[in-house]
Order: sequence, then C-alpha cells, then structure tokens
Amino acid sequence: MGHPRTRTTTAPSAAGAADAAAPLDAAELSTLDAHWRAANYLAVGQIYLMSNPLLTEPLRPEHIKPRLLGHWGTSPGLNLVHTHLNRVVRARDLDAVCIWGPGHGGPAVLANSWLDGTYTETYPDVTRDLAGMAELFRQFSFPGGVPSHVAPETPGSLHEGGELGYSLTHAYGAAFDNPELLVACVIGDGEAETGPLAASWHATKFLDPVHDGAVLPILHLNGYKIANPTVLARIPEDELDALLRGYGHEPLHVTGDDPAAVHQALAAAMDRALDRISVIQRRARADGDARRPHWPAIVLRTPKGWTGPREVDGHPVEGTWRAHQVPLPGVREHADHRHELERWLRSYRPQELFDEAGRPRPQVLACVPADRRRLGASPHANGGLLLRDLPLPPLQRHAVEVDKPGTVLHEPTRVLGGLLADVMAATAERRDFRLVGPDETASNRLDAVYEATGKAWQAATLPTDEHLARDGRVMEVLSEHLCQGWLEGYLLTGRHGLFASYEAFAHIVDSMVNQHVKWLKTARRLPWRRPVASLNYLLTSHVWRQDHNGFSHQDPGFVDHVLNKSPEVVRVYLPPDTNTLLTVADHALRSRDHVNVIVAGKQPCFDWLTLDQARVHCARGAGAWEWAGTETGDRAPDVVLACAGDVPTLETLAAADLLRRHLPELAVRVVNVVDLARLLPAEVHPHGMPDSEFDALFTRDKPIIFAYHGYPWLIHRLCYRRAGHQHLHVHGYKEEGTTTTPFDMVVRNDLDRFRLVLDAVDRVPGLGVRAVALRQAMTDARIRHHAWIREHGTDLPEVAEWTWTGG
Amino acid sequence: MGHPRTRTTTAPSAAGAADAAAPLDAAELSTLDAHWRAANYLAVGQIYLMSNPLLTEPLRPEHIKPRLLGHWGTSPGLNLVHTHLNRVVRARDLDAVCIWGPGHGGPAVLANSWLDGTYTETYPDVTRDLAGMAELFRQFSFPGGVPSHVAPETPGSLHEGGELGYSLTHAYGAAFDNPELLVACVIGDGEAETGPLAASWHATKFLDPVHDGAVLPILHLNGYKIANPTVLARIPEDELDALLRGYGHEPLHVTGDDPAAVHQALAAAMDRALDRISVIQRRARADGDARRPHWPAIVLRTPKGWTGPREVDGHPVEGTWRAHQVPLPGVREHADHRHELERWLRSYRPQELFDEAGRPRPQVLACVPADRRRLGASPHANGGLLLRDLPLPPLQRHAVEVDKPGTVLHEPTRVLGGLLADVMAATAERRDFRLVGPDETASNRLDAVYEATGKAWQAATLPTDEHLARDGRVMEVLSEHLCQGWLEGYLLTGRHGLFASYEAFAHIVDSMVNQHVKWLKTARRLPWRRPVASLNYLLTSHVWRQDHNGFSHQDPGFVDHVLNKSPEVVRVYLPPDTNTLLTVADHALRSRDHVNVIVAGKQPCFDWLTLDQARVHCARGAGAWEWAGTETGDRAPDVVLACAGDVPTLETLAAADLLRRHLPELAVRVVNVVDLARLLPAEVHPHGMPDSEFDALFTRDKPIIFAYHGYPWLIHRLCYRRAGHQHLHVHGYKEEGTTTTPFDMVVRNDLDRFRLVLDAVDRVPGLGVRAVALRQAMTDARIRHHAWIREHGTDLPEVAEWTWTGG
Repeated sequence: MGHPRTRTTTAPSAAGAADAAAPLDAAELSTLDAHWRAANYLAVGQIYLMSNPLLTEPLRPEHIKPRLLGHWGTSPGLNLVHTHLNRVVRARDLDAVCIWGPGHGGPAVLANSWLDGTYTETYPDVTRDLAGMAELFRQFSFPGGVPSHVAPETPGSLHEGGELGYSLTHAYGAAFDNPELLVACVIGDGEAETGPLAASWHATKFLDPVHDGAVLPILHLNGYKIANPTVLARIPEDELDALLRGYGHEPLHVTGDDPAAVHQALAAAMDRALDRISVIQRRARADGDARRPHWPAIVLRTPKGWTGPREVDGHPVEGTWRAHQVPLPGVREHADHRHELERWLRSYRPQELFDEAGRPRPQVLACVPADRRRLGASPHANGGLLLRDLPLPPLQRHAVEVDKPGTVLHEPTRVLGGLLADVMAATAERRDFRLVGPDETASNRLDAVYEATGKAWQAATLPTDEHLARDGRVMEVLSEHLCQGWLEGYLLTGRHGLFASYEAFAHIVDSMVNQHVKWLKTARRLPWRRPVASLNYLLTSHVWRQDHNGFSHQDPGFVDHVLNKSPEVVRVYLPPDTNTLLTVADHALRSRDHVNVIVAGKQPCFDWLTLDQARVHCARGAGAWEWAGTETGDRAPDVVLACAGDVPTLETLAAADLLRRHLPELAVRVVNVVDLARLLPAEVHPHGMPDSEFDALFTRDKPIIFAYHGYPWLIHRLCYRRAGHQHLHVHGYKEEGTTTTPFDMVVRNDLDRFRLVLDAVDRVPGLGVRAVALRQAMTDARIRHHAWIREHGTDLPEVAEWTWTGG
Repeated sequence: MGHPRTRTTTAPSAAGAADAAAPLDAAELSTLDAHWRAANYLAVGQIYLMSNPLLTEPLRPEHIKPRLLGHWGTSPGLNLVHTHLNRVVRARDLDAVCIWGPGHGGPAVLANSWLDGTYTETYPDVTRDLAGMAELFRQFSFPGGVPSHVAPETPGSLHEGGELGYSLTHAYGAAFDNPELLVACVIGDGEAETGPLAASWHATKFLDPVHDGAVLPILHLNGYKIANPTVLARIPEDELDALLRGYGHEPLHVTGDDPAAVHQALAAAMDRALDRISVIQRRARADGDARRPHWPAIVLRTPKGWTGPREVDGHPVEGTWRAHQVPLPGVREHADHRHELERWLRSYRPQELFDEAGRPRPQVLACVPADRRRLGASPHANGGLLLRDLPLPPLQRHAVEVDKPGTVLHEPTRVLGGLLADVMAATAERRDFRLVGPDETASNRLDAVYEATGKAWQAATLPTDEHLARDGRVMEVLSEHLCQGWLEGYLLTGRHGLFASYEAFAHIVDSMVNQHVKWLKTARRLPWRRPVASLNYLLTSHVWRQDHNGFSHQDPGFVDHVLNKSPEVVRVYLPPDTNTLLTVADHALRSRDHVNVIVAGKQPCFDWLTLDQARVHCARGAGAWEWAGTETGDRAPDVVLACAGDVPTLETLAAADLLRRHLPELAVRVVNVVDLARLLPAEVHPHGMPDSEFDALFTRDKPIIFAYHGYPWLIHRLCYRRAGHQHLHVHGYKEEGTTTTPFDMVVRNDLDRFRLVLDAVDRVPGLGVRAVALRQAMTDARIRHHAWIREHGTDLPEVAEWTWTGG
C-alpha cells in the first residue's frame, strides 16, 4: 500500500524465479522506459493541451483546453502494461490482444496506438508527427472527439471501458476457440469490486487448454477508485494471494514505485507467466495432460497517477485518489499550476522521445511489434475481419409437418435444438459457434445439441455426470453476466453464438446489453470496423408458463428495454409456433451487427404454419391469417384480432374460433405480428411499416383487439402515431403473476379467449341482441374456470382440449 | 464430492476443535434428528400430496396432486440447517434471522414454519394438526396457493428465493446496525456462481463488529444446479478453503452423508462459529480491538436430495442433479413409483413424529425456540414492526432563497447533501439510516454527509485517507449490486436509506429492483406484513451531463423500466430545481412500501421555485407555471410548453423566454411535471390525473411541446389515452450521445431551446409571416452553435450566460 519499495513475489510454494528476476539488460531497460515515458507524455498531453504539443514554446493559457475532462490516474499503469506487452509480443512473436478494463483508460491506449502507428493507419488525419500529435491531443474528450474511455473508436479494442466489470469475461470470450491467442486482461481494482468481475475469475473452470487460448489477468492495484481506496488493495497480500489461488490461479506479485525496478520485476513476471502458459498448453496439447491447470495471474501494485504531481496545493496527489481525474485543475487560470504542468510534461524528457517533426524516435519504438502483431492492429479486435458465414442446415430438415393449423403440438425450442445440433456438428472443426445459458439448456429443451458437443467443463467430474466435456461448446454457468460477457467477447472476435435464457432473468444483463448495443451502433458508423455476428437471445421459459416458479419468474420487460435502444441495431421477434421459430432463428443467425431478441416458448404449442407459410409470414413480419378470419369478398372486417407471441396467438385463435361459431356473420380479421418493430413508423425503425401498409392491415377505423405477449402499453408506444391508434385495445401482462396454471395466468391478466371475445363484441357497434348470448356465455365460462381451478388445480377441459376447428 | 464419509475439518491453522467434535448427547441427537425427519416428511408431502397427509391409508392416485411442481433437491439440506439453527438459537437465546438463498427452498422453510407454530399464527386456517397439514400440502405450488420459492408469504423471510444471487448481500443489509442480531445465510452452490453473490463475500470489509450484527454464511454444497454440477463443489477443498480465506473468512468444513455423524459435525461447527463470533464481538466491543476479524463461515457438503430415492428407473437420483425437482414424477400414473413414494415417506417414520391428530410430538419440537426467538417469528423478517419514523429536519433549514426565478444557480444534490447530513446526525444514536452508492457520494455532491458520519470501512487505512470510519453509515463499494442488496436487506429489517447512483448504471440492478417491487407488491397484500420504508433512488450524474464520460454513461431508461412495474409500488419524480428536490426527497424518505425514483442533476441549476412554491407544485405533481407563460385573461393558450426534468425545464424556460420576446402576442403556457405518474390515467396509477384535470392543464386541442428528460416515447406511453394526445409532441433523449458540452447534447437530441421554439411556431396555426423571422433566427442560432463548438469546444456565450428575464 502507498509507495512500497519494489519487489516481485511469487507464492511460497513456487520456486525457481530468482534467476529470472532481472531479465532486462541496460539497453532494453532504456528502450522500454523511453516507450513508457513517451506514452505517459502523450496521455498528459491529451488531457491538457490544445496546441503547442511538444512544448516548443513555454506553456501559455491558450495552449490549454478550456474544459479539462480527462483522467490521469490509471494512465501510467496502463502505459506500463502496454509497453511490457509490446516487449513480450515482439520477443515471442505472440498473437495477442489486450482487454483494457480500468475506466478512463482512453489516454493511455490512444497514446500507445498512436505510437505503434495503428492510430494513423486507422485515422489518416491523425498523422504520426507534430500535426497529428496536436490533433490527437485536441480531439480527446473534446466535443465531436473521442471519449475518455477505451471505446469502439479505439484501434485494438473490443471492450468499452465505461461501465466497469466486464473485462475478464470479455477476455475469456475472446480466448475460447482461439488456441493460438493470448488475451491479456488488465483489471482495475475498482472494477474488481463488481459482481460480474468477481464471478469472472471462476472462468478458469471453463477454459480448455487444448482448444482455447490463454487469458492472462493483470490485476492492477493502484489502490483507489474515484474517491475511495479499493478493497483488494487494502487486504493483506497473503489474503489476496489466497483469493487468487481460490479462483484457480497461480499469482505473481509485482509491487513498486521505482520505475527501473518495476520494469525488471514486471518483465520477469511476464516472462514467468508466459513460460508457464507455454508449459500448460504443451502439457495439455502434446502430452494429453487432462488436469485442470492453475493459470498464472499477475498482481501489479503501482501508485495511482504514478510520475504525476506528488503534491498539489499542499495535498498529496500521486499515489492517492486525488490523482484519479485531473491532478492540476487550474492550469489555464493559474500560472503556478501551469508551470507545474510544464515541469511534469518535461519530466518525461520529450526531446529524447520525439524528433523535431514530432515523430517518435527509433529508441521509443524499439519495443513495438510489427504489423498485425501490434496490439492496436490485432484482427481479433476487429472480429468482422475474421468472421465466416455460419453453416446453417436447410430448414426443411427440421421443419414440422402442418396439415391443418392448430391441431398438432410441438415444443418449438426442442425442434430448434435439432437445428442448433446441426450447427454444432457443422462447426465441430471450425469451432466458431457457442451456445451459452445459465444451466438451462436442457430445461429450455435445446438438449439435442448434446448429440454434437458437450458442456464445457474443466473441473472435477463424477461417473454420474452427463454431457460434460473439456472441449464442449455449450457454456453453462449460473451467471447471466458470464454468459453475456463470454458471448460478447466471442462475437466481437469474429465468431457466432446464441444466448438462451429464462425470459425474466434477461433483465440481469440489461445494462450489459445496453453497452453492447452502444458498441454496435458506434462500430457501424466506423467504416474500418467490419460487421460482426449479431448477439442473439432466445428468451424462453417465458412469463405465461412459470407454472411452478410463479411471480418472481414472470417479467416480459426485456423487450421493452431493448426497444429503447438504437433502432439500427435492435430487433425483436415473437414467433408464434415451431416453423416460425426456425425461420426467425435462421434469419437471426445469419444477420450481422444486430441484437436479436427471440421470444418463444418451450411448452407444447400448436403448429399454425407450414414452413413455406412461415417463411412468407416471417419475411413480412406481420400479416393477416386469412384462414383464421371470417372476412369475405371486399368487405372490410368488423374487428381485427391481432396477436404477437405464442400464448396470445393461441388465445386469439381460440377467440376467433368462438366468434366464428357463435357470430358467423361477424367479419373477423386475424393478424399475427412476428417482428415487433414492424409496428413502428418507417421513419423510426428500418423495419417500420409505412402508414399505408399499417392502415391496410389493421384498418384505420375498426376496433383492433391486440393480444400481446408482454406489457400492453408497449404496443401503444409502438403504434401511437397510427391512424387507427384510438381503436387499438391491447391485452397483455399486467404484473398479475403467481404460481398457477397456464390458462389461469391469461385469465388473471385478461388475455384469455373469453375476455378477448367480450372485448371484441363490446367494441363492434350495432351487434345489439346478437351479442347478448355470446357475452353471457363468455362470462359464464370465466366463472366456470374459477370454480374448476379451485377444486381441481387444473385448467377447464374445454380449454385444455381445444383445437382449431376452422378451415 | 459424491457421497464422502462424514468429517469436519477446519483450517490447518485453526486448533482446538477436536474436543468439541461431538457435542450432542444421544437424547439431543435423537430430538434433532426427529425434527429434521419431520421437516423432510412435510417437504415431501407438500410436493406430492393432495390428501391422506399422514398416510393413514395406502397411497392412491387421487391422493396425489395432478401437477407435480415442487423441488425436492435442496429441501433436506435446508431442513438440516434450520434444525441446527433452532438448536443454537434455543441454547444460546440468540436473536437470529436466516436468509434462505437456494432456489425452490419453499417446502423446507414452510415445513419448519409449520412445525414451530409461526405458520399457523400467521395463517390461522393452516392449523398445526391433520387438517392443517393437509392444507399445507395442498396449497403448495397449487393455483392460488404458495410458490415453490421462499417468498413474502413465508413467515420469517425477508428474501425471495426465486432470482438467485442476493442472499448474502441481503444478509449483510440485515446485520448492519443490528449489533445483537445473528444473520445466518444459507448460500446455494448454484447461487454462488452468480456475480452478485461472488462480490458479496467481500462485505467482510464493511461489517463493523461493534455496531453491526454478525453474518454467518453457510455455503451449502449439494453439488448440483438444475442440470449441472456446481463450480464450488468441484474444486479441491484446499482451493475452496483458500477462496474463503481470501474473502476474509475462517472456513469450517462439514462434509458427509451419514445423518448422525453430520448432526454431530454440524452442531460442532455451529458451536465453534458462534463461539468465534462471540469472541470477535467481545474483543471489538469490550477490548476495543480494531483489527478486522476473520469471521467464521461454514461449508456444508451433503448430497442433493439427501434421504430421497437413491435410484429411479435405474438412474441414480440421490446425490445427483436428478434430485433437483420431482424425483418420482409418475406417482399418479404408476403404481411402482407410488409405492416408492410411500416407502420414502414412511422412511421418516411419521408415526414417531406426529400424533394421530397430526400434531408434532414433543420430541420433534424439543429443539424449537420459544416465541419471538423462533426463526419464523423474528420481527427482523417483518421489519415494519420495528420501523420508526425518520427524524427529518425542517426543509426551511436547507431551502435556498429564490427572489426571482431563473437567475441564481445551486447544485441541487449538494443542497440535498446538507439535509442528508442532518438525517445522519439525528440518527447517530438510533443508527437506522444509511446512504449507499458506488463510490460516488462526493462525485454526486452529497459529501456534506461526511460532517455527520464516515464511510464504512474495516480494511486497512492510510494517513492520506479521508472520511473512512469503522462505524460509518455511508456505504461505498464499486458494485451497484451490493449497494442495492445491502439497502434492501436494511429496509426490509425496518430501517431507512437512500441509494444515490449515476443514472445510466441503475440498469445494473434492473433485475433486483424488479424483485424488490414484486416483494413489496405481494407484501402489501398480506395484512400481517407491516409497511417498511421505501426504497429511494437518487439518479444523478444523468444523461445530459456526461460531458467527459460520453455515450456509455448516457441512459435514462431506468425510469421506463420501473414504470412497467406494479403501480401501487412505483413512483418517479423529476424535480426541476433545488427546492423541489428537497421537497420530493423529504416526501420519499417519509413514504412506505414504495420504490421512489428521483432524477436530479448535480450540476449548477437555476432555482425556479421558492420552498413554498415547491411544496405546492410537488404536492400537485404537475402544474402550470403562470409566471413563465404569456396567457392573459380567460383566453386559452395557443401552445403548451411542457417539461419534466431539470435540463428540459431549463430549455423550456429559455424557449418560453424567446417566444415572449419575439412573439409577445402568442399565448404560451408553461407546464412542469414533477411526478411522472400524474400523466397516467387515474384508473391506472394511484397518482394518475383524472381526464378533466389533464385536459384543463394541457388542453384538449392545442399543440403540446413536451421536453422530457428521457426517452420521448415514454411520455406517449403515459398519455396515449388523453384527448389531447394527438397534439402531443415530445422531445427527449434519442440515443444520440457522445463526449460533448451540455448544450451540444440537447442540440444533438433536438431538445434545445431553439428547436423547441421552432416546433412551437410550426405547430401553432395562423402565425403566418409573424413567425418567419423567428424561425430564421432559431435556425441561425443552431448553425451558430455548431460553428462555435467546433472552434472553441464550449457552448455559445448567449446560451452559457442566459438567465430568465421575465417577470
């Protein structure tokens, strides 16, 4: 803590490190330190300077940015790690990528990218000379410029550093199925306090040393968050050491505040870690050693804001939380602060680092690897470069036969499981597809995939275990955060996947999907970023079928959350049956740069459409089911029964059936919506329907009784600009949940067939006496339901045994 | 793993346990085992039986529930822990409560509550006799009955067991400021894989042994989730031991599958743990020992579905994942399964446990504590019983002077910090108020609270640290999950608090607030549950002022998420200035059983209202600001400028100012909305406005230009049923975020004053030539803005220096 003297320690049980304790000769030490100083100089410059980037004249107020919005604290540590990664990547010719976890790491990673030339290659306007340095400085945290966090705009990055906690899970996602890749991952000690990060350490039990690459966690303890010390920096080192061993790691501790000594210690630790990784991989791959390895992890303890001002206005800054943001806030106004800044900048001896033209001198670049080995140039950080189309089977192979709608049942997700098994089999060699989920693959009835692959598992096994496999590509862990983070890392490095989850618990990753959508939105606007495979969710075990889990498992709001996000990215699909689910899943798995949310049940569900019909219907996204309605000739319908979602479709079809049998003269149109964004105006969402199409489908003036899977007001939110909106009446989930039967759930939320019929007859004008008997019959049926369920605990036979009887 | 023989181990470094290894004499062992068997019998009965609860006749199909929806796997372990907690609570006269973390723990906790009498006291219809036992069985996982998870309906519970991961953070929340309380916490090994749980262990660095109670984690490794082994059950015991030591615990391991031996081992471990807790507390409290203690934690390793069927249809069940749910699924249909179930039930020897009338025999109840000591009766689990009103200061003390609106600036949250400091001071003895937040109290400008208390911190300190205190009641940790969980546990045990967070990152706890709202909704309908203090959020550092954080920190959607939830629980407030923030916060801190979301900025913000005006305005929740408009006499306004949120209010007032100066003849009404739910229909939300009031305020037929803080469609979603809805035009955040100035942010999202004026003049019919010049001026101003910011990186002086010039 504080500023301890430099030392490297390894576990008492580890031996043989001493001879490698000072691996750098004087020349290499000098070049590494020069690179580090150059990166530090550039980081400070970004935070403060508008012009005069190389201090060719004394600093004047107009050289200083009017608003100082950067963060210094984490930069020197990140620069140190980057410098030393350069060294080992170059020395060992490694294929490596780095995840930069700490918040506000922008200045450091940008500085390094500018130094290694990738920034200029990516943004030719920011040249690697004086003019480019000035622009690099000006644009940072400046309106229209680049953010203070590592972001999509940052070359070499696949991880946004704004919302903390996901670096390590992203690192593992990048490493899966990339056996030759080293994924370094700098974890901030602030970030380390988050739940997702705390859980991520246990990914050691899921990483296959044969088929996956290596993750090298570098826990950087600079000791402070915004305003507080960090937990892991303030527990005794033996406690921290035990913690990391408990996570399955072999920790290597590097601690110090003397640059030369820390360079030696960190170089030694990196060498040791990479040697250890080589041994682990060779043993597993060549020798077939099946024991779970204890992967190395580096604990790097250096002062926050290291090499920055020691004191400002009488307060200690370096090595304290005061170094977090801008250590010298008054440089534009106060000459003494400005002089202090100039002293600070000159302390890096910029004239040794850059020539008069502002170009980094050769010594500074001596440690930088070449070409694609540069961390800023890794194709893994621009995964679209590596992406291949997924080999999807013909849908005919899995489609179900539908002779007559609404008479035969299938479990949609079980059939989808067959398709996914084909994908798993077809990617057995390529290994670029993974299925993730929190312990629910079988519960969600996708277990056909186990015919093609197992569940990734490196911990101990017992004879009674099933489907566990060291090389499995189904990822099951009881953490939605890990599932999401692994998949994000996997997709952003150019692979494919699907996240299957209980619907309600998708909210656990609300904030993560926010960040992923933001990433995709920004990346789509960057021409150099190539499209990546979409993030596909299958939300199943949904709100209407939580028969034994009850209220806590009932929440359809993830769709609402996602639809608040950038329309160019988000897509929501509610396939009503098996063949539509296959069609939608096929589409989602082929798509790029989207977040696709598919909501589909796992329980037996009537088949409504043949595969050909499903293809047409899903391509339109919403359409009338003529066979289900009672329109004749050119006459407009009297009422539109619309539906979205499997259970609402069932209730709507049952309602249409009742209306057809009891009021055959009523012209009913049944509309099913698969692609929810079609309801939006065309100018709001790329899938949005033109008004003319909406009006033709839903009418402008007839009652629309809309049975929706989730919160009813979402449909209003999508349709409020439509001509027929005032005639729209939506039934959906109203937070009336409990442990009960499927039909009782819809009754409690007024989504049941009887209620839909009541609503329809109430809203069609002029039915008069014709509706009286039907209204009474519907009311009686609801009463009958309540009495029956109280006595039997099951659904009315007339409901349980219903099938579609129409043409 | 599997079925190891029984053993108790403690750390190699711990000594002196041997003499206490078998603390139970034969009589006590017999009574504990009888209690355990009785609870197991009752758990199985709940899962299977409709009638014939005591097997007074051979099991017939009609005795079996038609739908078997319970979960057996976790029950025997929870019953074991409950039995042994009974023992130590009784023996040591402890004030204890238990958090039951594992999912589907309902059958066990209900069984115990029925045994100790609290169930019958809570639900007199479920008597502690044969008829009550039948009803206990029938209602479980039955329509209209009780859920399979521990839930609000469960006596003695303050933790819903449906969504996993929050047990340990709830336990700490319950323990804070409850120095005499023991909070036992059973953590399932599935749950232990989640992020929130993984982070929760580090709460050892925040628990004050002087002023807080003790948390005793009992990590129950039954080895399996739904379909998989668990990570912590499949790592070597020394690795798990290191992990727990790394978390700051002294682990006590109990492993076995022989009931008698496990009874002895668990009793010994509990004795040892409680002895250790006594020593820790005595040292800290009497001796002033300020070292952070290493609290005990128990690791209990017993088979999943212990004492259930060993094999079913040739597959091993006991001790495998197959025991998770219903081990014998076909008991209604298949006689052999039914006979197996009967054998299983009779294996507990129910005739020894219950008399002919179905009452538990005295031996079974010998371990049960008396009265309020029973775990089912703890007032801490029904915190409203213990709740006292919060001592809030008079608002006058903190209110700011407002001579003229829109001319003086205050930082609203800084002023609120003064009020919170008063609350902290007034509760210094009572210790029933905490402020939680992820390292942002000072950043959010609430740091006045440090005058009254410090930040809770038990880890090491350095001389440069500020405001850290062992007894501090500000909780800062970089985990929104811990903040939320701690506060939930604190509130549900009868105390008060506030969660201050960056707005965007409130989404991290979307799923947790879901569950808390569900808890409150259900609890409100249970007459025996007394109201608790509301969960209050202060969302600050909001979407419009992320000048240096940019896009990743911009998300106003938490409000949308919360407004999907039960209207009787959720409230959203957007106070536009300092005095309204004080008023709203005062109201929220006095309220009960709500989730209050307050969105307010921390940046300097114009004062609009005096305290008296603020009180009137906040009580109405929405109202016209006559002083800001240009209506005269009885004439209806030409246009309504509505706003909600501090930045939209500023832009709206600036727009009104422009209109007044440039088009003085236009009758403008300015409406400000503080309480967002007022926009909803009265029949939808208790705060909803009747149509008559809405129409009078917003008009039925005039253009309404609504500047809203968040996603614009939320306002449409709230207002779609209103007469004037087709005239409503909402400006808000459209996901156009970046690193930029405050005014550039509103321009990018079309929320700026110039755009509002343009929208107003475009929508008021008949302005003709009068509007031409103004329209041009507004367009020019926007162009001027773009040019200025490109050059200067700051906002236009005319914007930056604007003040309200009206009356």
